[in-house]
Amino acid sequence: MVRIALDAMGGDNAPQSVIEGADLAKARSPHLDIVFVGDEALIRPLLDSSRYLRQAEILHTDKAVFPTETASQAVRRGRESSMWLAIAEVAGKRADAVVSAGNTGALMAMAKLQLRTMPGITRPAIAGFFPTEKNAMCMLDLGANLECDEENLVQFALMGRAFYVSLMDKANPSVGLLNVGEEEQKGHEYLRLAAQQLSHPELDVNYVGFVEGSDLVRGEVDIIVTDGFSGNIALKTAEGVAGLFAKMLRRSFKGSVMAGLGYLLARPALKKFRTKMDPRRYNGAVFLGLNGIAVKSHGGTDALGFSNAIDVASNLVEHGFIPDVSAAIEKAGAIREQKKIVNE
Amino acid sequence: MVRIALDAMGGDNAPQSVIEGADLAKARSPHLDIVFVGDEALIRPLLDSSRYLRQAEILHTDKAVFPTETASQAVRRGRESSMWLAIAEVAGKRADAVVSAGNTGALMAMAKLQLRTMPGITRPAIAGFFPTEKNAMCMLDLGANLECDEENLVQFALMGRAFYVSLMDKANPSVGLLNVGEEEQKGHEYLRLAAQQLSHPELDVNYVGFVEGSDLVRGEVDIIVTDGFSGNIALKTAEGVAGLFAKMLRRSFKGSVMAGLGYLLARPALKKFRTKMDPRRYNGAVFLGLNGIAVKSHGGTDALGFSNAIDVASNLVEHGFIPDVSAAIEKAGAIREQKKIVNE
Repeated sequence: MVRIALDAMGGDNAPQSVIEGADLAKARSPHLDIVFVGDEALIRPLLDSSRYLRQAEILHTDKAVFPTETASQAVRRGRESSMWLAIAEVAGKRADAVVSAGNTGALMAMAKLQLRTMPGITRPAIAGFFPTEKNAMCMLDLGANLECDEENLVQFALMGRAFYVSLMDKANPSVGLLNVGEEEQKGHEYLRLAAQQLSHPELDVNYVGFVEGSDLVRGEVDIIVTDGFSGNIALKTAEGVAGLFAKMLRRSFKGSVMAGLGYLLARPALKKFRTKMDPRRYNGAVFLGLNGIAVKSHGGTDALGFSNAIDVASNLVEHGFIPDVSAAIEKAGAIREQKKIVNE
Repeated sequence: MVRIALDAMGGDNAPQSVIEGADLAKARSPHLDIVFVGDEALIRPLLDSSRYLRQAEILHTDKAVFPTETASQAVRRGRESSMWLAIAEVAGKRADAVVSAGNTGALMAMAKLQLRTMPGITRPAIAGFFPTEKNAMCMLDLGANLECDEENLVQFALMGRAFYVSLMDKANPSVGLLNVGEEEQKGHEYLRLAAQQLSHPELDVNYVGFVEGSDLVRGEVDIIVTDGFSGNIALKTAEGVAGLFAKMLRRSFKGSVMAGLGYLLARPALKKFRTKMDPRRYNGAVFLGLNGIAVKSHGGTDALGFSNAIDVASNLVEHGFIPDVSAAIEKAGAIREQKKIVNE
């Protein structure tokens, strides 16, 4: 059994989408043991009408983190909130992972406080998967660290690789560094230093060089590493452009009777395209570098999207993601120490 | 008359797309006086078969900047290149503006060397227009300055505003700073300082606050200011996602006979959408902050795209862009001096 603690009160459609999402996940993976943290009066009736969760446990609290709170407000005020208590289940080893669709900043701050940063990690990072022309691509950091140095980026690459391998059926994924050009002399100094370190054969990273913003959707590189400022801007820009295209396409088809008829004929073909790009399929960003698995679901997602975030959490548990990251960071640390000794 | 010097040898389809583009621009604006800089043996036959450029002047050189050269290689080697000599026309006041579809780094370096930075400007920047859901949006810096401080960003805002007003029929365009969240406490320190300065009433900037990557396509903000690293990544990410959508849409329509028929019916409606988003309509990025107008055309564009870059150049000349920027920077400098005196 894999035990997952869910913040039942986080997200725009909580607790309904949380419970319906958990029901979908449980239907696919009967070995999931789910504990709901939140307001029992709201959760119980939804569990009663669920298919697979009538026996599920509830950890009651009537407090929740607000979507508009800053991280520090939430940490000060929210020690009895559903978010804090759900994370506490993982910190207390009573659950294997936590999933929340609530306030991102609060979740990051509370997870860092309770789960603590893994030994050897300088900065935790947020990672997620995204659709591309080919296979899904993993990008990190998505916004946890606005400023990064070469050591942070190298650690992001190692954590990203363990994350990728846990969720995808590919042994040696490729890693690229996001930059403003592919040439070696381009970009910030810390990017060139990170590139040098990632190229080191002993580190055993399949490093393929600098990539550009246009490479995000090509799917030629499996893991794209960047600082949290650029990563957040790239992510939101991509979401914005994709949303605008989808909206204008819908508008075009609705613009005339002929176009509407054309849409009906093309619908099956367009549906395949839409399914491939459906953001719900990629829902579930993960805070990497903590002593425990914390997954952030998109706040506005529905049951299907939330169920995918639960899958991300349970797959990471089953694939031993935490020991994998720990081993990779330890190895990188040993290589660095060795080099220092050689250089002295 | 507005006199424009064209680097006839820059770009993937040079000199053909340059001359055909100039022919289109001349058809629209008979007051353009165009001088082609490049290989006369290649240019002359194309001019002879043009509609409006049979009398146009050629400044002959058989040297050109290579697309793969670094900026410093180009500057060392390329003093007789078509790019250098086209810029020299503006520097020597024999032309009002220069347009090139060649190597961006080389064009920036050569333009800076010959035109020199405007008094009071700390760093020149690259600006361009982009399609959104509503009106076109102007973004800068697109990659000239990887690291920026608050003073650079404030100057980018002032230059961007003069650029916007020169090309668009709107008196008081809104300005936003690209960040990872809209809340005032978010992001880098220099962003918060730039926000403070831009909010100052004496500066008379219609500053609307922080914007995110997702705001790039909304069209709610006219001018988006950012450092060159983030700007370049946002730009290329947006281009990549838009390209992927267009490609997958084409593929969907070609996937079955029914879908193909659907496309035929919806084609007029889809065409409107495609026209609105056509990158050729937005072609022509400008190096702002130099003592002269230098416009960079996309290297892969066709005649229509190149003609738009020429329009950008001639509109900037006609609207007195250079004196406008100069006045705005002088005013901002005076306000800063005054404050220093008051604070002392």
